[in-house]
Amino acid sequence: MKQRLIIDMDDVMADATGQFIDTYEKEFGVRVARESLNGKTEGAGWPHPQEVLYQFTFRPQFFRTMRVNEGAQEVVRQLNEKYSVFIVSSAMEFPNSLREKLDWLKEHFPFLHWKQFVFCGSKSIVHGDYMIDDLPHNLDTFGGRRLLFTAPHNMQFTQYERLNNWREVGALLL
Amino acid sequence: MKQRLIIDMDDVMADATGQFIDTYEKEFGVRVARESLNGKTEGAGWPHPQEVLYQFTFRPQFFRTMRVNEGAQEVVRQLNEKYSVFIVSSAMEFPNSLREKLDWLKEHFPFLHWKQFVFCGSKSIVHGDYMIDDLPHNLDTFGGRRLLFTAPHNMQFTQYERLNNWREVGALLL
Repeated sequence: MKQRLIIDMDDVMADATGQFIDTYEKEFGVRVARESLNGKTEGAGWPHPQEVLYQFTFRPQFFRTMRVNEGAQEVVRQLNEKYSVFIVSSAMEFPNSLREKLDWLKEHFPFLHWKQFVFCGSKSIVHGDYMIDDLPHNLDTFGGRRLLFTAPHNMQFTQYERLNNWREVGALLL
Repeated sequence: MKQRLIIDMDDVMADATGQFIDTYEKEFGVRVARESLNGKTEGAGWPHPQEVLYQFTFRPQFFRTMRVNEGAQEVVRQLNEKYSVFIVSSAMEFPNSLREKLDWLKEHFPFLHWKQFVFCGSKSIVHGDYMIDDLPHNLDTFGGRRLLFTAPHNMQFTQYERLNNWREVGALLL
């Protein structure tokens, strides 16, 4: 039986940080440098308070139009042969995101089946052998091997094994 | 720590069978008696083949306008005090259903938090202490105590502990 591998979407498969930067630039005319966000918790490091960025997540198309992170498609395609892959995303807070995330997955990862997708509120409900996530609090409740995917907002955390990009994911798991 | 209780939506919290009967009547002018469906697998027992009923599930508002099953609101409210309740629904096959199920839960079960909702394709991904579901194949992969909630299409199954209605759920778990 294949081992179960759980993969997050935002800032793992999808470039959520890039989407925030692009949306912020369109809205306020200022392009925030990705590197300037390093080591700052989500929402910190921006000229406006976190509440302003939070509003972006309720806008139609915000989740639908995210770019795919470099290497994600090819590595997930290979992982999908070796593991029982589940894509698990904390989508429930953002009602628009549900359909948009499903459509995004179907567009960019057409080799995955809808049976492999999970949209939840709390990731404590899922179980498996590996979890790749950018948020330490999602890894905290996981019973398997916990892998922190590097994003600007998690640079300061050291408690979990870190994977800096999809090349490193492939090197570890393939 | 509270025990985790996983509850299904269609034909457990929501009267999915009733919605099929109503929709079929509107479409074809024939009201199928609920009792005539007893012991027949999903989609069997209807004048038209299963494919016709399957189309209903892709229509806007099909999931949004289901009635709440009798007693579900009050018993779930009480269960929510005693257990760590998660609502887990196989919604991913039906893209419209994602937002509709979320809105339905918010309307009829406003005392639940979005962190308690899970929309998936395969229920093998969730773990907990109890699962209440009308479909034996969802219970098959569950590691906790498996409780089959009676629906016309599962009358013929005997392998799981059966709960016939929300009164019986309350009597067992409260």
